Amino acid sequence: MTQAIPATLADIQAPVRARLDEVRSELRRIVEADFGLIAEVNAHLLQMQGKMLRPTLLLLADEATGAPDPRAATLGAVVELIHLATLVHDDSVDHSVRRRGMPTINALFSHQVSVIMGDYLYSRAVIELVRLADLEPLRILGRVTNEMTVGEMRQLLAHDRLAFSEEQYDLLIMAKTASLLSGACETGAIRAPGEQRQAMREFGLRLGMAFQIVDDLLDYTGDATITGKPVGADLREHKVTLPLIHALPKLSASQRREVSALMDTETPTDAQIAAVVEAVTEAGGLDYARERAAALSTGAEAALELLAPSPAREALRASIPFVLDRRS
Amino acid sequence: MTQAIPATLADIQAPVRARLDEVRSELRRIVEADFGLIAEVNAHLLQMQGKMLRPTLLLLADEATGAPDPRAATLGAVVELIHLATLVHDDSVDHSVRRRGMPTINALFSHQVSVIMGDYLYSRAVIELVRLADLEPLRILGRVTNEMTVGEMRQLLAHDRLAFSEEQYDLLIMAKTASLLSGACETGAIRAPGEQRQAMREFGLRLGMAFQIVDDLLDYTGDATITGKPVGADLREHKVTLPLIHALPKLSASQRREVSALMDTETPTDAQIAAVVEAVTEAGGLDYARERAAALSTGAEAALELLAPSPAREALRASIPFVLDRRS
Repeated sequence: MTQAIPATLADIQAPVRARLDEVRSELRRIVEADFGLIAEVNAHLLQMQGKMLRPTLLLLADEATGAPDPRAATLGAVVELIHLATLVHDDSVDHSVRRRGMPTINALFSHQVSVIMGDYLYSRAVIELVRLADLEPLRILGRVTNEMTVGEMRQLLAHDRLAFSEEQYDLLIMAKTASLLSGACETGAIRAPGEQRQAMREFGLRLGMAFQIVDDLLDYTGDATITGKPVGADLREHKVTLPLIHALPKLSASQRREVSALMDTETPTDAQIAAVVEAVTEAGGLDYARERAAALSTGAEAALELLAPSPAREALRASIPFVLDRRS
Repeated sequence: MTQAIPATLADIQAPVRARLDEVRSELRRIVEADFGLIAEVNAHLLQMQGKMLRPTLLLLADEATGAPDPRAATLGAVVELIHLATLVHDDSVDHSVRRRGMPTINALFSHQVSVIMGDYLYSRAVIELVRLADLEPLRILGRVTNEMTVGEMRQLLAHDRLAFSEEQYDLLIMAKTASLLSGACETGAIRAPGEQRQAMREFGLRLGMAFQIVDDLLDYTGDATITGKPVGADLREHKVTLPLIHALPKLSASQRREVSALMDTETPTDAQIAAVVEAVTEAGGLDYARERAAALSTGAEAALELLAPSPAREALRASIPFVLDRRS
C-alpha cells in the first residue's frame, strides 16, 4: 500500500500551497493583540509553527469533496489555532521546556502565562468561528475540544498503570490526537454530502490513531538526533503506550519485575529503560503496534474510496504513508 | 442612594428563585461526565457553588426587559459555568489553596487537573451554546471570555508595579471582573430592544467595576473572619490596587520607601503590611476608592431608568447596595 518513494510534506501540500499561505496570514490576523505581553507570546508561537498538518488535511478535504469553500483558509487557521492552544496547555501540564526545537511558553515566560495564553487562543478561535456565522464548524470543533480535554485526563491516568488496557489506550489516542485530525477533515467537508463528510471524518480518525501509534513507537525506536527527544522518554515519565500494553502479558516473571521496578523508580536509569525496550521488542510489542498502525492506514485509505478521483484525494492518500513512515 | 436596610441576597433573588433552581439543575446537566476523574472534580465544584450572582443578574435582566426567555436558565448555567472555569484556571495560575472556604481543585487534585478541567468546563459551555442554535449568546460570551484572558494578563503585570496607573487599573477590572457581569446582564436582555440591551450591558459593566473596587477595598479594611482571607493578602502578593495607586503620589518620601521595601520583600511581615495599610488610609486611598465605587453605582442605577418599573428592575437596583456594602 505504501509507495516505493513516500511522498514528502511538500508533495502532499502541493495542491493547496497557495491556500496554506492564506491560512498563515489568517492565523496572524486572528491572534493579533494590541496588549504587549500577548503580542510577544504570539510572535513566539508563530515562529514555532510546525508542519501545518491539520490545515493541510482540511484544505485537501475541502478540495477533494467539491467546490472550494471560500472560508476554508479561515477554518484551517482556526483548527491550527485550537491545536496551538492545546500544545500550550499540554506543555504547561507536562512542565515541558522544549517543543519543536524551541523553548515552550512556560519555559520562556511562565506557567501562568501558558495557562492564560491557551485560554486566550481558544477564545479567539471561538470568536472567529462566531464571525463566520455558521454553527456547523462550531459544533464540530466544540465537540473536538471537549474530547481533547477528556483525552488529557485519560493521559494523566495512563501513568504508572500497568493495568492500562488496549481498549483504554484506544480511547485515549482517539480523544487526544485523532479527534482534532478527524475534526479538521470533517470541517473541510462541511458542505459535502453527508456520506462524504462521514468518510472524511473516518479517514481523519484512523489517520489520527495511526499517527499517535507511530508517535508512541518512535519513543521505542526513534533516532534521538531526528526526533529531538531521547529514546524512552515516555518510559522515563512512566507513560504506558501500546507496545508495552501488548508485550506485558507475554513477558517473563523477571522481565515483568524489571518493568514494575522502572515504574517505581522516580528517575529510571538508561540501563533500566534499555532493558524494558529490549523486553518489549522481544515480546513483539513493536511489531504489534506497527501492525495496528498499518491496519488503521488501510481503513483510512478505504474511506477515501467514497470520493471522486482528484489530485487532492491522491494527496490525502499520500498523507497516509507520510504519517506511517515518518521518523520524527 | 443606598437603602436604610440593604437588601439581602435572598431579597434580590426573590423574583427569580424558581428559575435559579432550574439554573442549578441545568448546570449539573451541562457538566455531566461519565469519565470518573471528571465526575469527581465536577462533584467538588458543584459543592462549592457560590452566590450565583451572575445567573441572578441574567435572570433579572431577562425579566426586567420583557417576556421571560425560556432559554434563560440554560444561559444562566452557561454563564456560571464560564465563571467556574475562570476560577479554576485563576486558582491554578495563583497557586491558591482555598476558595469559598473549600480546597481548590489544584490543592485537592493537582495543577494538571486544574488546567485540563478549566478547558473541559469551557468547552462544555461552548457545546451548550451551540446546542441552543443562536449565535448571539456565543458572540457575547466568546468576547467576554477573551476579555477575561486579557484581564488576567494585565493582572500578571500589575504586580510589583508602582508605576501602575489608575487608567491601567480600570482596564484591568473591566476585563477581569466587569466583563462577565456585563455579559451576563446583556445576555439576559438578548431579545430586548437595542437600547435596553445596551442599558443592561452598561449596568453590568458599572456594577462589575464597583464590585471589584469593593473587593480590593476589603483587602485593606475587611474582617478576616468574614472575608475568609487575611487583611493585606493582596499587598502580601505585591498586588497593586486602587487605594495604593491613588495614595502613592501623596505619600511622604519615607512612606514611599516603606512601600518599595514591601514590594522588594519576598514575604512581607505583618508590620510592613500594617504600615502600608496605614499610610494608604491616611493619604485618602480608601476614601477615594469608596467614592469611585459610589460614582459607578450611581451610573449603574441611572442605566436602569431605561427599563419599565417591575419587581425585577427593583431587584437589580437592590443588587447595587448589596455589592457596595458587602463585607465578604
